[in-house]
Amino acid sequence: MSVDLRTVVAPSSVAILGASNDPDRIGGKFLWHLLKQGYQGKVYPINPKYTELFGRQCYPGLQAISDPVEHAVILMGKDRVMAALAECRAKGVRAATIIASGYAEVGTAEGRAAQKELERFARESGIRLVGPNCWGLINLLDNFCPTGAAVVGELAPMPAGNLALITQSAGVGQGSVLYRGANRGIDFGYALGVGNEADLHMADFLEYVIDDPRIDVIALVTEGFRDGPRFISLARRAALADKPIVILKVGRTELGARMASSHTGALTGSDAVADAVFRQYGVIRVDDYDELIDIAGLFAKLMQSRKLPRGDGVVAISVSGGHTALIGDLGEANGLRFPPMAEGTLARLRKILPGFGSFVNPLDLTAMAVNDPTFWRQCVETLMDDAAFDVVVPIITVARSYQDVIEDLIRLDGESEKPIVVLWAGGDFQGDGRKLLAQSSIPWVESPLRLIKGLRALADFRRHRERIARTTVMVEPPRTGAASVLREARAEGRRALTERESKDLLARAGLPVTRERLATTVEEAIAAAAEIGYPVALKVEAPDLLHKTEAGALRLNISNPRELAEAYEAIVASALRFKPDLQLRGVLVQEMVPGGEEVILGAKLDRTFGPVVMVGLGGVLVEVMQDVSMRVAPVTPEEARRMLDELKGAALLRGARGRPVADEAAVVDALVSLSRLAVELGPDLREIDVNPLIVLPAGQGARAADALIIV
Amino acid sequence: MSVDLRTVVAPSSVAILGASNDPDRIGGKFLWHLLKQGYQGKVYPINPKYTELFGRQCYPGLQAISDPVEHAVILMGKDRVMAALAECRAKGVRAATIIASGYAEVGTAEGRAAQKELERFARESGIRLVGPNCWGLINLLDNFCPTGAAVVGELAPMPAGNLALITQSAGVGQGSVLYRGANRGIDFGYALGVGNEADLHMADFLEYVIDDPRIDVIALVTEGFRDGPRFISLARRAALADKPIVILKVGRTELGARMASSHTGALTGSDAVADAVFRQYGVIRVDDYDELIDIAGLFAKLMQSRKLPRGDGVVAISVSGGHTALIGDLGEANGLRFPPMAEGTLARLRKILPGFGSFVNPLDLTAMAVNDPTFWRQCVETLMDDAAFDVVVPIITVARSYQDVIEDLIRLDGESEKPIVVLWAGGDFQGDGRKLLAQSSIPWVESPLRLIKGLRALADFRRHRERIARTTVMVEPPRTGAASVLREARAEGRRALTERESKDLLARAGLPVTRERLATTVEEAIAAAAEIGYPVALKVEAPDLLHKTEAGALRLNISNPRELAEAYEAIVASALRFKPDLQLRGVLVQEMVPGGEEVILGAKLDRTFGPVVMVGLGGVLVEVMQDVSMRVAPVTPEEARRMLDELKGAALLRGARGRPVADEAAVVDALVSLSRLAVELGPDLREIDVNPLIVLPAGQGARAADALIIV
Repeated sequence: MSVDLRTVVAPSSVAILGASNDPDRIGGKFLWHLLKQGYQGKVYPINPKYTELFGRQCYPGLQAISDPVEHAVILMGKDRVMAALAECRAKGVRAATIIASGYAEVGTAEGRAAQKELERFARESGIRLVGPNCWGLINLLDNFCPTGAAVVGELAPMPAGNLALITQSAGVGQGSVLYRGANRGIDFGYALGVGNEADLHMADFLEYVIDDPRIDVIALVTEGFRDGPRFISLARRAALADKPIVILKVGRTELGARMASSHTGALTGSDAVADAVFRQYGVIRVDDYDELIDIAGLFAKLMQSRKLPRGDGVVAISVSGGHTALIGDLGEANGLRFPPMAEGTLARLRKILPGFGSFVNPLDLTAMAVNDPTFWRQCVETLMDDAAFDVVVPIITVARSYQDVIEDLIRLDGESEKPIVVLWAGGDFQGDGRKLLAQSSIPWVESPLRLIKGLRALADFRRHRERIARTTVMVEPPRTGAASVLREARAEGRRALTERESKDLLARAGLPVTRERLATTVEEAIAAAAEIGYPVALKVEAPDLLHKTEAGALRLNISNPRELAEAYEAIVASALRFKPDLQLRGVLVQEMVPGGEEVILGAKLDRTFGPVVMVGLGGVLVEVMQDVSMRVAPVTPEEARRMLDELKGAALLRGARGRPVADEAAVVDALVSLSRLAVELGPDLREIDVNPLIVLPAGQGARAADALIIV
Repeated sequence: MSVDLRTVVAPSSVAILGASNDPDRIGGKFLWHLLKQGYQGKVYPINPKYTELFGRQCYPGLQAISDPVEHAVILMGKDRVMAALAECRAKGVRAATIIASGYAEVGTAEGRAAQKELERFARESGIRLVGPNCWGLINLLDNFCPTGAAVVGELAPMPAGNLALITQSAGVGQGSVLYRGANRGIDFGYALGVGNEADLHMADFLEYVIDDPRIDVIALVTEGFRDGPRFISLARRAALADKPIVILKVGRTELGARMASSHTGALTGSDAVADAVFRQYGVIRVDDYDELIDIAGLFAKLMQSRKLPRGDGVVAISVSGGHTALIGDLGEANGLRFPPMAEGTLARLRKILPGFGSFVNPLDLTAMAVNDPTFWRQCVETLMDDAAFDVVVPIITVARSYQDVIEDLIRLDGESEKPIVVLWAGGDFQGDGRKLLAQSSIPWVESPLRLIKGLRALADFRRHRERIARTTVMVEPPRTGAASVLREARAEGRRALTERESKDLLARAGLPVTRERLATTVEEAIAAAAEIGYPVALKVEAPDLLHKTEAGALRLNISNPRELAEAYEAIVASALRFKPDLQLRGVLVQEMVPGGEEVILGAKLDRTFGPVVMVGLGGVLVEVMQDVSMRVAPVTPEEARRMLDELKGAALLRGARGRPVADEAAVVDALVSLSRLAVELGPDLREIDVNPLIVLPAGQGARAADALIIV
């Protein structure tokens, strides 16, 4: 699937179709931004009305250019786009960016048809298309910026950095993230607007930037994924290449998803599944554009100076006790560690601040340090030497008099391998230390909440990478023949497999199920019960009977042959009363599993990401509290354990309320097996419901007591 | 408790003890800020080293001043504070601010003792004290600003507004909130730093600003409450005066709380109880200083122009589909409504934007509107006329070319009763529309998350105020004599009441309990069972037996006299084996309540806020999921219903999973009764545990099946 995007993202020549002379209007803007950023390739403005634009020769049409042209930027409205593309094809152009809107995003049949036409054109011509409905590409590493984004007009030439932004929304990505990020001193390498993705998708650009050695960090703004499995494989590849992906995904709620699909026409998959994918592959999810800027910017600055923290020990320092309390508070709520200081550190601090009460982390220097800023330098230096701390966080409150403090911090940062991250809690005005900071390699964040989320993401990053590296890729799915069983049932017009068929498939896939026999007479049933051992359960087996309870078609806890004989006749009679034309196959004689914890396992096919598995604790916790964890299949045992760890109700498996500790390993095995079965079924999967899986005390395993496979 | 704070907050004369000539050092800073802001009262710098400071006559000591002095600001270090105060007393000064640190906040015995000395001085002298360990008072309404806060030095004379900030932490409050807020164009009336609160407490200032008609909105930064009941009564008073309180309370987690108490020495009550108080009294809680600024600023600007939204219908508008999707997404997740447009609105919009696909809310104008900014004015005007919308939210992304748009918005805002709130999603640079906005009366927020939280708070505000107005104050607690029962039990050295004693008290307080009789012989027990009706439960009653199950001292579901006789002997024997010296009082014969939903009710004494009550659903939901709701007692039936609404598990009372709908009204009654009992017990309350309260189907009531009162 890999695509050579050089002529798209970094061409050696570009024609601007529809260029004009007013930098405030679209025709002039794109050309002006390209020139202002200092593009070094050949530039061909195209417009029969002009002979020159911004000091460059202007051509009446592509054919008037004698040299070859790699990339064309088409600024004309939608009704003139196809003609322009035909001209590109004739000229041998390799790639084109289409700015016009009015395609799939307006939600009309005409708009969708016009977009299909572009898609077809790209396929047939081999010309790769960016857009439509986009605001142009911004490649600051190679100074190729044919874009309408105001930030380039304002700030070009912009410095290039190691952060790549890829965005479906020009407004959020190139409007808010790039602009606001640049204002905060964050250097981007790319800000690529993909628009409606008629031809080139976000994933194509994602692959490109993962492979670009100048990029360390990737920020995505998306409203959905066209190709879930490809995103997963790229997320994995990014993790293994040590490139964190920070994502702002719109479409959490129904309304957001509706908005999103009316915008780009992308199929927005279930947000909960996307969330599971992010957890599984270490993708860092944020809630708004400022979080995206701060967290991606934090990674970018630290990776630029090769200073990712080695662990999750944080020390914060401030002259304000309120600030240290706030940061300690938010940090602890988000699972950060504030380790105590080493003895040697305490001894040094006592020398710096004699007569000071107690030195705790976060460290409140109190008003004592306000009048002597050298305390700052001495204390920060001391804390940087303490091996317990992986990152040092100075909280800067008062701005003007702190220029020396900032200068000291910049010097200390330059001398150490350990990262400093500043929380800028002060105001903004000209000539302050914040400007110094923005020009330095020290990352800084203004909001405590976003700082804490960023530190949390930094602390998780290495762990995720190691975990993903351990994940073995399953080369061969198991071969249980399950898919053919499902297809046969579907061919019979059935909605579901029977309990016995379902459990049979699960057992073949390696899940533990209750022992059971199908009996067609009372005598067979009594013999089966003798073999299985009392007590047993009896259940009517019939492909057209899904809900046994309401049909009176099951009986539990049967303890002897006499009871069994009576129950057999009774449930068969009841089922036949309930449904006279029942396709009766017999009666299932099933072991009764002694008391254990009830767990629910499930699998389903997500239309974006493919087979997924879920787990929750039985009854109220799943249905009322929605306490479930989900992953894309297959899952490793390690991932299955992480799923259990995510459940609030997991305490019930771990001895809460005087229960015995349950056999978690058996749940993990069952989840792994179910996930492999889900992969084997692939597109044949609809839904699998194991409810309940009864989990016995540790060492005694688990049994699927009931199961339903929807075909 | 009301205190006249005029001489504290707005004196007609002030002496600055320890004044000097360098505005960059503490001695010069306070005086310089006071003068720069334009204080109109008499100013007396005091320092024997100078005869003049900043053009004002300087005095060698207070006694050298012939006129009376109302307020003294003491800038000297801790060791010279008591001498300065003695001088103040001799001069007849009415109030003093103490800046020095080194008191209770350092956590040493010496520091605490020094603070006690201040407290005693205030009590004996009648001189009201602010601080110590504070950064001075900022009263912009009366231009009394003897403060060290850098923002005053930078921006004075600062405009005065309708927002009052009261803060324990100078760093967070006067450093971050005031400074950053002023940078965003928010006008404060006060920024009062209370420091360690040796004499005057946060509550004194809170009362003062509630009563000041120039103040509409109150922002608090606190690490705890000294006097919970007083805070509650002030929160109530603020609500009834239509003055929202927005609070940043540090101390959510253990670490935050530890930090907080090492800072101000305030007793930080349980954070969960504080949170319950905030919910109960409509206090708006935020998580960091930027949220405090944005949400308090939103209220302040809208209240300044008397434009609080009348309902919770929001319409957002943008030229970026990504932004409308993001805001729709976050809004819906936070319970905001984005109603559809009225037919007349749609007709008008179709005329403005012919050929446009569909008009949905949030409204994406698409790139069409980028080149013609008049679309903005026309569309916003149209949306403002639609009665379905209570607030109109333009999302501004591109900055430079949007000056006309901002000017149009300001004009429209001036002509309408309906509020406009801008989301500023663009960058910052000189001469942009943001500056125009900051000077206008339109509130604006930069972060989507904070905007949404602010709109949520606005939507809730009226509802809270109406609810609190309906809350009847309970003038007389009930008189069940419960407190004396508890005191007697305590006098006997007992840890708890027996089940029978506990239920007896609960029944007297109006809670429904199981019918039961105490029997001392088998015959009495059989007679009691006949009266109550089988099945019954038997439980050994003994004041020194708290855990009956482990002692084998109870038996459930006894269905006839024969079983009863056997069980009676068995449980008594078992209890005596378990504890040979048992103080056996007899055996409790108790009705068995038929199946219902199990609810847990509780009450306890919080050391800050007094008696609180809680409710949760039985078993796993309380113990594993911590799904409980809490309030300060007493609660009204309306408040009790809100408590149930907060429980995720409430669905179980409302027919989830095929259950019958339970008698919620009975739970509400029981909670109200329990809360009244908790108030009656007051300081005698320790813990009351009603576990379970069995709730029968609607109309059939509830019964406390077990109860324990700790004395």
